[in-house]
Amino acid sequence: MSISIAHLGPTGTNTETAALAYARWLEQHKGENCLLCPHPSIAQSLYSVANGETQQAVVPVENSTEGSVTMTLDSLWQLDRLQIQQELVLPICHVLLSRGTSLKGIKTVYSHPQALAQCQRWLEANLPSVVLIPTNSTTEALHEINLAPTSAAIAAPRASKLYHLPILANNINDYPDNCTRFWVLGLTPNIVQGERISVGFSVPENVPGALVKPLQVFAKRGINLSRIESRPTKRSLGEYVFFVDLEVKSEPNSIEEALIELRTHTEVLKVFGSYQVLFLQQKDIDQL
Amino acid sequence: MSISIAHLGPTGTNTETAALAYARWLEQHKGENCLLCPHPSIAQSLYSVANGETQQAVVPVENSTEGSVTMTLDSLWQLDRLQIQQELVLPICHVLLSRGTSLKGIKTVYSHPQALAQCQRWLEANLPSVVLIPTNSTTEALHEINLAPTSAAIAAPRASKLYHLPILANNINDYPDNCTRFWVLGLTPNIVQGERISVGFSVPENVPGALVKPLQVFAKRGINLSRIESRPTKRSLGEYVFFVDLEVKSEPNSIEEALIELRTHTEVLKVFGSYQVLFLQQKDIDQL
Repeated sequence: MSISIAHLGPTGTNTETAALAYARWLEQHKGENCLLCPHPSIAQSLYSVANGETQQAVVPVENSTEGSVTMTLDSLWQLDRLQIQQELVLPICHVLLSRGTSLKGIKTVYSHPQALAQCQRWLEANLPSVVLIPTNSTTEALHEINLAPTSAAIAAPRASKLYHLPILANNINDYPDNCTRFWVLGLTPNIVQGERISVGFSVPENVPGALVKPLQVFAKRGINLSRIESRPTKRSLGEYVFFVDLEVKSEPNSIEEALIELRTHTEVLKVFGSYQVLFLQQKDIDQL
Repeated sequence: MSISIAHLGPTGTNTETAALAYARWLEQHKGENCLLCPHPSIAQSLYSVANGETQQAVVPVENSTEGSVTMTLDSLWQLDRLQIQQELVLPICHVLLSRGTSLKGIKTVYSHPQALAQCQRWLEANLPSVVLIPTNSTTEALHEINLAPTSAAIAAPRASKLYHLPILANNINDYPDNCTRFWVLGLTPNIVQGERISVGFSVPENVPGALVKPLQVFAKRGINLSRIESRPTKRSLGEYVFFVDLEVKSEPNSIEEALIELRTHTEVLKVFGSYQVLFLQQKDIDQL
């Protein structure tokens, strides 16, 4: 039986590329077959796993230029049941797709807000007077722009082949080392010893040092935090949930001790899982 | 001569409401006249101040449901010259505007991604199968939806009067205590002793405790952090800039000492200013 994997669609999104690369890796290393299931939003991908409609979901967590994907963090905190199975790091290259033959003729550019933001300087320098239209995914508007030569879209090079749309400008992301972290989520905890652990917590009171105590739990054991992110609890301005990623370099016992001590300094503590990180290369993507 | 204030337009956005309330406050308390200047984006509002085209800008910083407005934080770090003059906290109420007469007939809902996100649950419960179209501001699509009775938009109640559009559903935000913090920015430091100070910093190395040291500087002096936010440096995945808001309750000397010590634990430190917070009430807004 194949593993069903939810992801943001329609076909050609960077999330689909990450899901395809993961499916290929599962096939090669575990002999598992996968079935990819496109969804109209990140939240719907996550809900489909929580409701048992699909077994896993691949969702973006953080981009090196634009930061956290807040929809993913908020849904993960609310859903309360999803466990991280694996992290995937994907290099992200944006291209401008259009039927038009020169930049001068372009009046409108469509893309996901994250992609528009990642190409902001290029757009200001090369297309300063176009109208930018945010879409639900990088590929959502591709059928539309296929009809109008004055329209263009920012998407991945794979989308050019899939939608038979010419590339009008290549590598238009503002920062060359642009990459995105994706998490594979499922309902059961990952049994493999991971190299990273992700947790979320709220602190009991908004007092001086309320955040220092949880952070000291890790600092005094020499455990490095690879990331800390705050998100509003949504109840009231100034109340936060913190998301922390820990590097598992020290003894597993030391991490377990830290998590036990952390519970005494936090109001709610959720452990999202221990997982390995798979760095995907451009050559892996080109083969998909 | 009047003070020119840049803000996100077109007319009827929540940012314009904040700017109008601030202009009214300036007139009543300082006898200053203001000229509001709508801009197509938050970034362009900030650039207009940095380039000397307008004297001040009002921009959203953080919403109680959706968190930081990352465009504002990133632009503030990059521009390097803007100083916070004042904070405004505005209660945010969303309504559904449409020429249509029942929810059943609505096929498409337009709004800014922040507003769509703040009404996500209401939309799922009441309009589960509509197409959501993100726009550059809550008022951008209002001329468009005026023509089609199957279209609706999420905007502020003020927009209903300004665009002569009926309210089809009231108070549709998921959390009743929904409010947004706005900063008024200018080129010169604020001379008034503030109740809050905002700083941004990067840490010298990604090692265990690299963030604990800057936070201890405040904790040991009993200075409360009302917020901490991390943003990517954009150079490489895993490198961050931290934004911290400090409550000025203790002696001003103690804060000054803390900022001097903070410099020894940080790579780059930027002080964005010391400012007062003005809490706006619904009745202030209803008069505008």
